[in-house]
Formats: sequence, C-alpha cells, structure tokens
Amino acid sequence: MAEQNSVSDSSASNGISSVIPGWFSEMSPMWPGEAHSLKVEKILLQQKSQYQNVMVFESATYGKVLVLDGVIQVTERDECAYQEMITHLPLGSIPNPKKVLVIGGGDGGVLREVSRYSSAEQIDICEIDGMVVDVSKQFFPALAVGFEDPRVNVHIGDGVAFLKAVPEGTYDAVIVDSSDPIGPAQELFEKPFFASVAKALRPGGVVCTQAESIWLHMHIIEDIVSNCIQYSKAPSTMLGPQFQLTQGIVRYQN
Amino acid sequence: MAEQNSVSDSSASNGISSVIPGWFSEMSPMWPGEAHSLKVEKILLQQKSQYQNVMVFESATYGKVLVLDGVIQVTERDECAYQEMITHLPLGSIPNPKKVLVIGGGDGGVLREVSRYSSAEQIDICEIDGMVVDVSKQFFPALAVGFEDPRVNVHIGDGVAFLKAVPEGTYDAVIVDSSDPIGPAQELFEKPFFASVAKALRPGGVVCTQAESIWLHMHIIEDIVSNCIQYSKAPSTMLGPQFQLTQGIVRYQN
Repeated sequence: MAEQNSVSDSSASNGISSVIPGWFSEMSPMWPGEAHSLKVEKILLQQKSQYQNVMVFESATYGKVLVLDGVIQVTERDECAYQEMITHLPLGSIPNPKKVLVIGGGDGGVLREVSRYSSAEQIDICEIDGMVVDVSKQFFPALAVGFEDPRVNVHIGDGVAFLKAVPEGTYDAVIVDSSDPIGPAQELFEKPFFASVAKALRPGGVVCTQAESIWLHMHIIEDIVSNCIQYSKAPSTMLGPQFQLTQGIVRYQN
Repeated sequence: MAEQNSVSDSSASNGISSVIPGWFSEMSPMWPGEAHSLKVEKILLQQKSQYQNVMVFESATYGKVLVLDGVIQVTERDECAYQEMITHLPLGSIPNPKKVLVIGGGDGGVLREVSRYSSAEQIDICEIDGMVVDVSKQFFPALAVGFEDPRVNVHIGDGVAFLKAVPEGTYDAVIVDSSDPIGPAQELFEKPFFASVAKALRPGGVVCTQAESIWLHMHIIEDIVSNCIQYSKAPSTMLGPQFQLTQGIVRYQN
C-alpha cells in the first residue's frame, strides 16, 4: 500500500488519489505499470474507517463508484456481473442451499443475490468494516437492499475469528467476497483461513472466493487452488467477465 | 476522433497522447469517461501513415505496445488471447479449412494462428495500411512471423474493394480483424460489407469479426448480428477474455 499511496499523494491536490486532474486513477502495486481511470463528476464521501480509506464518487459514465484504499470495489454500471458470478456459481451447484455465510461483502450485493434462493433459511454475513455497510446503505441502495431480507444476520467483525467459532459442518455454502490481499483482507487468502472454511462447511458444502485477475495474479489463483486441494478433489477456477479485468473465482466442494 | 485528439493534445507535451506524464492513456469517444493507462519506458516509433497515426512504445509491464490513432491494438503480454479466439473459433468450427481470408490483421498475429492449420492451402490477407505490416515486422517479430508462411498472399489495399472483386464462394473462412469503427475500419461494420463477405464465402463457410466490448458497445454487437442474420440462421456472439475488456466476437456460418 505504501507505493500506491505515494503515487497517489504525489499528484493529488484535492485529496483523491487521482493522476489525471478531475479523474480517479486506480493504481496499486497489485497491477504495476498500469492504471484505470474514471472521470469524476462529484466526490460524495471521503472518510477513514478503522481499517481503510472509504470513498464514494459519482462518475461520468459508470454511475456511483465505491473505492476502498484507492481500489474500485463496485461501480453501479457493472456490479451485477461480479455479484451474480460469485453467488450463483456455488449456490446453483448444490440442491437447496439452506445456510449460507458471506465473508466480506459489506456492500450487500452478494446478499441481494443469495436472498433470491427460496431454500435459504439462514444468511449470515461477517464484514470487518461497519462503515462499508453504512456507506452502502447511504449511497448504493440497489446493493444494500440485500441487508433487508429478514433471513440476513449481520456480524461486524473479523471473518477469520468468526469462522473459527463456527460449529463444524454448519454451512451449505460460504462465499468469500473479499478485497485485494494487501489490506484488511490479507488473511482471507491464507491457508489457515481455508482450513476454517472447510471445517465450517457441511460435507458436500461449497465455497467460492474472489481470486483476483487471471491475467495478473495467476500465482494467487494457484496458491488458492493449492490451499483448496487439501479439502476437495477438484477445485475449479472460473472466470467472471468484468469490464476492467477477467476475474478469477475459485470454487471447491467439501 | 476529434474529441480523442483534443483530449490528448491538450495535455501532451512530448507528442504522445498521454494525460499522465510518462504514461500513455487510451482515451476515445468509444469509451467516454474512462481511460486505461500504461507506463511508458520508451517511445520506439511515432509516424503518420496515409490512414492513421502509428505509435510503438516499450511499456513498463506489458512489453511492446502498438497504438493506432491513440488506441491500443496489441500488447506483447496479452495479444495471444485475441488472436487465438478470433482465429480458432471460426477455423475450428468447420472441417479442413482450405482457403482463408483475413481482412485487416496487418500485425500478422491472426496469420500466425491461421498457419497452424495444415489443411490451409491459401491464406489471403487484405490490410489497408502497409505501414502497419512494416512496423510489425520491425518491432513485433512474434506477431509478424505470420507473414513468413509460404501460403500467405499479402494484399495492401481496401478490404471492402478487395471483397467485392472476390469470385462468389471462394473462401472457407473470413476473419475480420479490424480496429474500431471510427477510423479506416468504419466500413467493416456496415451492411454492404457483410453482403460482400457472404458472397465471398462458400456455402457452409464461416466468418468471425471483432465486435468491440460487450460492456460498452452492445448496440454495435446487435447491429453486426442484425446484419449477419440475413445470411445465417444462427449468428453466435462469443467472448474473448482480454485484460482490458471482454471483447465480443461474432461468428456466422453461410
């Protein structure tokens, strides 16, 4: 994050991490040597939570945009692809999922998709940063609608700790909707986390996790698959077609 | 193109269309409100051909990059995905393609893939801009290798005129490897062109054409499909996973 912030700060005069005046530029050591930029109509929020910088802006052509620590999390224009892929790939692959856990996903978009399953009886979410939930409710009603389902139980806290306390074999499905592995989500890409997920899943239960870009982060995808392979004979890597990147999604079945 | 050039020129001091100092930014009215930028290590070539501005630069993390009229055509890092999708989808869908025509494709990458088919007896290419061929031979040997196959016949000229002169039913496959529909490639997206392609194909022959982004240009894809539907009962739209965009590719069979 140090490199990202220094790049941003050196050229930002108005506090947003922009390298084109009037535009937001997404730069990170996760994708060195390249930047994706969106034209900013208006900055709607800039705050520092306990865990990260939170920004919302109205873009010229992508609707409202949620940015955490300088990285775009969702745009109103294309959020559907990610939420649908990471939810329906696991839930559509088992019959009648009843108990579902979302780790991360504080914007509510994955909850929105999970709540489409009439079989679901209990939908738990553990998001580390309560400010993300509040900001989504304020600025992204089409995502935050996911929190309105009465089956949803919201836990604000550390997903790693939450999972450790889950009784063995509780969930039919776990969806890990994390940010990049260089901030508060780092542990969600590490081996002990996958052991906890496997324990929390019932036999035959499935997990689906955000796995970064297939073009840039094959080593991350390989690490995740390697972690999963201990709990599943055949983890499968799938692709979510998003505008900015072709995102990897790894699924495995207990 | 006017808007694109004005955006570029207003902030470029060294002649490259960059809005971040030391970076190349791809901006166009084809994708308003957003820009993708690559860090430039060294500009290797900047020339104006009869048809367009031609630039080659060494990027920090994507290898050499070919830019036509401010729009990235290929990077060494990810060119494989596009060339393979637009070639093997049509050629792999018919038995033993013998006569293949490439419209555009002056970098040679599609020719490289076509020449993998031992069934191919005649590989014609019609590229409007001879400078693109020369530049590719100079800077992109891994692409330009496609020109070395003895079955390849190079025609420098207008693809629309070339097709009109083709005897009916000549080709097993036509691959349209065009740039965006706002420069010299504009006619390759229009109805008369598809009529010429249909005439040049043998019954059962296939065509595959670059169809812009599925996120931004669904109207262009719809127009192409609508043009194709007159010659085929079932044009199919497929996706090429590229880093910067999820590219549409439309195929139809005569």
